[in-house]
Amino acid sequence: MLQDSEILAKLMQRQMGYSLEQDFYTDAGVFDLDLRSVFYREWLFAIPTCEIPKPGNYVTHKVGDYGVIIVRGQDGEIRAFHNACRHRGSVVCKAKKGTAPKLVCPYHQWTYELDGSLLWARDMGPDFDASKHGLRSVHCRELAGLVYICLAAEAPDFDAFAAMAEPYLAPHDLGNAKVAYESSIIENGNWKLVWENNRECYHCAGNHPSLCRTYPEDPAVTGVSDGSTPPVLQQHFDRVEAGGIPARFQIDQGGQFRVARMPLLDGAVSYTMNGKEAVTKKLGRVPFADAGPLLQFHYPTTWNHFLPDHSIVFRVTPISPTETEVTTKWLVHKDAEEGVDYDLQRLTEVWMHTNDEDRIVVEDNQQGINSPAYTPGPYSPTHESGVIQFVDWYTAQLTRTMTGRTLVAAE
Amino acid sequence: MLQDSEILAKLMQRQMGYSLEQDFYTDAGVFDLDLRSVFYREWLFAIPTCEIPKPGNYVTHKVGDYGVIIVRGQDGEIRAFHNACRHRGSVVCKAKKGTAPKLVCPYHQWTYELDGSLLWARDMGPDFDASKHGLRSVHCRELAGLVYICLAAEAPDFDAFAAMAEPYLAPHDLGNAKVAYESSIIENGNWKLVWENNRECYHCAGNHPSLCRTYPEDPAVTGVSDGSTPPVLQQHFDRVEAGGIPARFQIDQGGQFRVARMPLLDGAVSYTMNGKEAVTKKLGRVPFADAGPLLQFHYPTTWNHFLPDHSIVFRVTPISPTETEVTTKWLVHKDAEEGVDYDLQRLTEVWMHTNDEDRIVVEDNQQGINSPAYTPGPYSPTHESGVIQFVDWYTAQLTRTMTGRTLVAAE
Amino acid sequence: MLQDSEILAKLMQRQMGYSLEQDFYTDAGVFDLDLRSVFYREWLFAIPTCEIPKPGNYVTHKVGDYGVIIVRGQDGEIRAFHNACRHRGSVVCKAKKGTAPKLVCPYHQWTYELDGSLLWARDMGPDFDASKHGLRSVHCRELAGLVYICLAAEAPDFDAFAAMAEPYLAPHDLGNAKVAYESSIIENGNWKLVWENNRECYHCAGNHPSLCRTYPEDPAVTGVSDGSTPPVLQQHFDRVEAGGIPARFQIDQGGQFRVARMPLLDGAVSYTMNGKEAVTKKLGRVPFADAGPLLQFHYPTTWNHFLPDHSIVFRVTPISPTETEVTTKWLVHKDAEEGVDYDLQRLTEVWMHTNDEDRIVVEDNQQGINSPAYTPGPYSPTHESGVIQFVDWYTAQLTRTMTGRTLVAAE
Repeated sequence: MLQDSEILAKLMQRQMGYSLEQDFYTDAGVFDLDLRSVFYREWLFAIPTCEIPKPGNYVTHKVGDYGVIIVRGQDGEIRAFHNACRHRGSVVCKAKKGTAPKLVCPYHQWTYELDGSLLWARDMGPDFDASKHGLRSVHCRELAGLVYICLAAEAPDFDAFAAMAEPYLAPHDLGNAKVAYESSIIENGNWKLVWENNRECYHCAGNHPSLCRTYPEDPAVTGVSDGSTPPVLQQHFDRVEAGGIPARFQIDQGGQFRVARMPLLDGAVSYTMNGKEAVTKKLGRVPFADAGPLLQFHYPTTWNHFLPDHSIVFRVTPISPTETEVTTKWLVHKDAEEGVDYDLQRLTEVWMHTNDEDRIVVEDNQQGINSPAYTPGPYSPTHESGVIQFVDWYTAQLTRTMTGRTLVAAE
Repeated sequence: MLQDSEILAKLMQRQMGYSLEQDFYTDAGVFDLDLRSVFYREWLFAIPTCEIPKPGNYVTHKVGDYGVIIVRGQDGEIRAFHNACRHRGSVVCKAKKGTAPKLVCPYHQWTYELDGSLLWARDMGPDFDASKHGLRSVHCRELAGLVYICLAAEAPDFDAFAAMAEPYLAPHDLGNAKVAYESSIIENGNWKLVWENNRECYHCAGNHPSLCRTYPEDPAVTGVSDGSTPPVLQQHFDRVEAGGIPARFQIDQGGQFRVARMPLLDGAVSYTMNGKEAVTKKLGRVPFADAGPLLQFHYPTTWNHFLPDHSIVFRVTPISPTETEVTTKWLVHKDAEEGVDYDLQRLTEVWMHTNDEDRIVVEDNQQGINSPAYTPGPYSPTHESGVIQFVDWYTAQLTRTMTGRTLVAAE
Repeated sequence: MLQDSEILAKLMQRQMGYSLEQDFYTDAGVFDLDLRSVFYREWLFAIPTCEIPKPGNYVTHKVGDYGVIIVRGQDGEIRAFHNACRHRGSVVCKAKKGTAPKLVCPYHQWTYELDGSLLWARDMGPDFDASKHGLRSVHCRELAGLVYICLAAEAPDFDAFAAMAEPYLAPHDLGNAKVAYESSIIENGNWKLVWENNRECYHCAGNHPSLCRTYPEDPAVTGVSDGSTPPVLQQHFDRVEAGGIPARFQIDQGGQFRVARMPLLDGAVSYTMNGKEAVTKKLGRVPFADAGPLLQFHYPTTWNHFLPDHSIVFRVTPISPTETEVTTKWLVHKDAEEGVDYDLQRLTEVWMHTNDEDRIVVEDNQQGINSPAYTPGPYSPTHESGVIQFVDWYTAQLTRTMTGRTLVAAE
């Protein structure tokens, strides 16, 4: 189990454009540092707001060792709290989701308001100050129908991301969505392998027969450009933006998030086996059926595909050095009826297949890396620019949190 | 994983009257110290003697990494031995319980007498001294029908406990008991959470509908008093003692054990759903049906409810930092017949429910404490005096074993 | 978890002729050193060559964290490679065994020749040198129909073993064999306990009723002699060697391997319940039906029984400090037909039973050793000379790899 100083040394020595050394994908010390430097420090996508539409609706979520309650208050505001009673620490909300007028600890019935304040605790004596025993809060922000949380004592800036993403998200009207289906799978691979796999389509032709019916293998769609935009993409951006909604590729200066509205293949409009729409009652007001998906990622927890007819949100949660949960939610208009406006099988099959195919390649990747004989190999400059971008962001993040400054390994 | 010195520092810094810091419930180093300072050092309740009534009857039991055989010899005496052959270390007795005229190792048939001496080992050569290869013994004491063992090289004093407890236990005649039913469950919580839960009834009203039919929530029954005894309890003690058996609350100066014969609710006489007796052929000679249960605990392994009609013994065995085994045995008179003198379902249902309800709250407590956001909270001075007493005993025990002296954290 | 220096100190202090201290059977640091000093350094038996008779046939095998591909090339030569793609490290061959014209990574279809060279990798850019990205090779040697591999950067000598074993193996004609049956079991015991058990028959009478019908308990058959050969064995060796095949006991000076052709009981000719032959179409050209089994071991991975009618090869693979895989393969002549020339149940039953009986005693041995009360005990000088020989080899191997010299603990 590596110490932070050893990990820092390895970061300084790494070969740019190559996959990381074995320890980054297997070591318990690196995993612990990943939690401290990334997951316990950055803003994390948690849920779409449509999962808790009414006061008292709550969802629980675990990130590393932290348990979090996300709850909508009587005032309509969404807040997040640590899921541990201030008495002896019991979990307060046990269910994955539910509705409660107050948050009552099941152990000794300490009772909290939906805003976290302690309302009642039996026989705690005259010296007890209830106002000092409210639930501990977790930073929480809403962005166009998406809830982000941050576990750090002081949260980093969220506004830059919100400013970039909000205009792209607004036309999708996620506040009027509902979850049509939800899937959680465990991939037996390090969370960075899940991301590396997501950030390239070099593997698509050999592994994703369903997705490749509609999603282009073109690395300019998945990856990051070298500054120039291919004419076919530029035409797409121009056409969609002329229709009144933002489309062009934008990426955070630090590399943590990106938005772009990309074309699908051959006039396909949604992720279905025949490329036609999946939902007749559309979610959002995107003016063209063939506007393509808004591809948004925000490291370290979410990539998304917001389509003209429905949206798909993905959430990445690290479980152990070699286990990662991937949760996928298909969002449709809240008034869309299953069997009438959409067929659930047809809506979900492409990404259910794709997720499972990705799980297999990630697990095979992890298995091979577990060997002491593994050595970092070169990424394809053509097809894996997105992977290089992710790895560069990750290594910069770790370096910055350990040293307080931005260092770059010499080429 | 904490070092002993780090644990000692945390003990010195702890806030009195508050639950312990997270590490005490989760850390592998603390768990290891708990084994060394508590379970490998103190007297531990193992079994009632009635489980091995005849010569050659044996029971095996595991405490941490130790395996122990408890066996009744040809002379009627009960002895305990480490369950590892002196040849190459194989387990000698494989079953949970059994009967054997000799203890024969299944590997190479080395054969031991019931007193542990090595009787036969094939072809070990002329230099082999069988008298130096008997089974290694474990300290073992009988107390009024209960077997206690101690894994330490030198056992601490047992006589003070025996002197206090024997007069209370004698009327229950445990030597003439049999085990009517036995249950072992694993609670996914630290062993101290199991004890903290046991030492208060603050949680009873919200969690134990069956038990609350007969067992009083009154903290004076479960906890420890501030020196005064409530009149209702004093009257109960006086009435029962006038009948010839000891009843009043007594506690060890060091806090390790306690005896008290406490009243049940509303004239209930046993732990049944309607409060009436569970067994018509009584175990023991307690003169009043409503004498209430003799509540005896002895840290770190046992609490008990000895009733006028039957007895229930509980055994706590730590498995890992977050797993604890709780074994419950219902003892009835050896001549009582199931279906005639007692109904097994009726005898066991209250504590089968209560154990499972306790398992759930302990597991929820552990889950919440696992969060880095957990902070120690205040115990109720009214309802959790017993918990405070347990935690004070535990912290004093660790401090004493690490420093050789009794230190108390400043308030 | 012990450091190497602590393990070395324990080796220097050990009592000769006694079982090892607990840590050698339980500690994660010792297990790691065992991998580094033994399994990642020595030649390891992997498979019989008859499992991959044709070009493109391959088998995968895991040793510790290493995954290995063993494949027969277009030129007929058998080679071994690390099973990790030189791109991003994915496993290349996922199946336990198979056939492929090229080795194609399932992730991005990088394609390797059967000799490990990289044939094709899509769009890796102008600076990419395919000749530097072939599969990393593993040392591989064939010996009379058996494949050995070595994971070390520089392999130790193999020739001395080959020179001793080849004349004994040649008459068994393993190149013309096929695998009639294969069994893999996990024994919940340290790999050294598996070996200690294998190297003595002191436990046979009490545990192996099927094997004892044909295999002699005589320690001269299983163990190592004190220099003299018992007349009954000498007569057997002389008779068989007069028939033209080597038989007498030979052992490596360093103790790593041994060959000897030993008699079975009462004229038995094979490991069957009645001692008669198991296969009518014989594998090999051993001139006498009652020549007995060629017993060959090679530490740390294989013991074998090559009989006049068939052969049985065993492979030992450590999984964790307390888990070991034992794989057994029954080899018969490639033209022998099941149901005609042999009955599968009859061929395999003795060693299927024996393996399972051995699993049980090894697991009981491990359980007892897990107790802190375990202390090393004396081996029988009569019956456990083979165990003493194994333990001496093992301790010398660890000492040599840590110190670079051969040290022997003083008596």
